[in-house]
Amino acid sequence: MVSADILERLDRTLSERRSADPSTSYVARLFHKGQEAILKKVGEEAVETIMAAKDNDRLHLVREVADLWFHTLVLLKHEGLSHEDVLAELARREGISGIEEKASRPKED
Amino acid sequence: MVSADILERLDRTLSERRSADPSTSYVARLFHKGQEAILKKVGEEAVETIMAAKDNDRLHLVREVADLWFHTLVLLKHEGLSHEDVLAELARREGISGIEEKASRPKED
Amino acid sequence: MVSADILERLDRTLSERRSADPSTSYVARLFHKGQEAILKKVGEEAVETIMAAKDNDRLHLVREVADLWFHTLVLLKHEGLSHEDVLAELARREGISGIEEKASRPKED
Amino acid sequence: MVSADILERLDRTLSERRSADPSTSYVARLFHKGQEAILKKVGEEAVETIMAAKDNDRLHLVREVADLWFHTLVLLKHEGLSHEDVLAELARREGISGIEEKASRPKED
Repeated sequence: MVSADILERLDRTLSERRSADPSTSYVARLFHKGQEAILKKVGEEAVETIMAAKDNDRLHLVREVADLWFHTLVLLKHEGLSHEDVLAELARREGISGIEEKASRPKED
Repeated sequence: MVSADILERLDRTLSERRSADPSTSYVARLFHKGQEAILKKVGEEAVETIMAAKDNDRLHLVREVADLWFHTLVLLKHEGLSHEDVLAELARREGISGIEEKASRPKED
Repeated sequence: MVSADILERLDRTLSERRSADPSTSYVARLFHKGQEAILKKVGEEAVETIMAAKDNDRLHLVREVADLWFHTLVLLKHEGLSHEDVLAELARREGISGIEEKASRPKED
Repeated sequence: MVSADILERLDRTLSERRSADPSTSYVARLFHKGQEAILKKVGEEAVETIMAAKDNDRLHLVREVADLWFHTLVLLKHEGLSHEDVLAELARREGISGIEEKASRPKED
C-alpha cells in the first residue's frame, strides 16, 4: 500500500519552492508567474485527463491525474491552503452525510 | 493534522457504490451512466475550481478542489484504478528526480 | 452556401431573451442566472466538443461546436458584446498580419 | 456592420494551411501535430475565455472568444468540416423550434 505521506512531502517541497528563485525550478517559476498561469495549467491537465480517459490509456490516465492533482496542490499552496484542507473537506462530507452529500444539493440545469 | 486515511475510506466506499443499484445514490448513478458522464463532471469541477480561484473565495475553492478530486477518484475507480496509483506516480517522480521532473519534459507550445 | 445571417438573427433573438421573463425560455433563464451559470455552460460545451472529436463522431462534433458557439454568443450578449466584435477581431488579425499573428506572440510554457 | 465574410476567408486560408509545410506557419504546424494538439488548444482557449469573463475585461474577452472560435475552425477543418456545418446546425435549430430547442432536450444532472 502506497503511503499518502507523499502529499505531506509534496506540501513541504511546495512551501520551499514558493519563495525560491524562479530560475531554480519549474514550480518556483509557476508560483512566480502567479494565479493566472497556475489556473491555465489546472485547466490544461483537466483536458488531458479527459483525453487520456477517452483513449482508454490507463497508464497515461494515471500520469494525467497525477499532473492534475499536482497542479491543484500548487494552486492551493498559492492561495495559502493545502491538501489538508481538501482532505478535511472530504472527511467532513463523509462524517456528516457520507459521500452522497452532493446528491442533496439543489440540481442545476 | 488530517489523516489521509480518508482516501482509503473513500476508495472502499466507491468500490461498494460501483456495483450498487443506481437508484441508491448519486455515485452509484454516476457509475451506471458511465465514463462519458463521469468525464463531464471532471470537466465541470475543473471549471468551477478555476472560477472559485478567480473569485479569491478560499472556502469555495476548497470545496471545488474536493469536488474535483472526488470525481477523479470516481473516474479512477471506473477505470479499475485508484488513488494509490496516483500517489505512487507522484512518489515515483519525487524518487527519481524530484517534483521538477516535469521541467525536463519536452516543452509543448 | 449557408448564409452567416444566422449570426445576425441569433443576435436579435438573444437581445430579446436578455430582458425576457426567465420562465419563458432556456436562454432567458440562463441570462437571469447570470455570468457564473453562462461560464459553466461554456466550459461544459468545450468539454463535450473535445469528447465528440475524440469519438470521431462528426455529426456529434458539429452539434457540440454549435452549442459552444451558441453559449459564447450568450456570454458576449451578457457582457454587452456580440458576434460582430469577434468577427471584427478575426478580420483585424487577418488585415494586419494574417491569421499567423498568434505565432508571433510570446510563447507561454 | 462587420461582414461574416471573414469566416469564408478564414476557411480558405485554413484549407491552404492544412496541406502546407509545418515550418511555414503556426496553423500549418498545428494541423501537422494533429487532433490531440488542436483539442488541447480548444480546451486552453475555453479556459482563457472563462478567466477573461471573470476579470470583466471586455477587450480581453473578445480576443479570447476569437481565439476559441478560431481554434474550433481549425478543429472543424481537421475533421473535414467547416463553419458552414455549424451555421447550418444553428439555422436548423432556429428553423425547427427556435433557439429554445435545447430546453426540450432531456435534462442531465
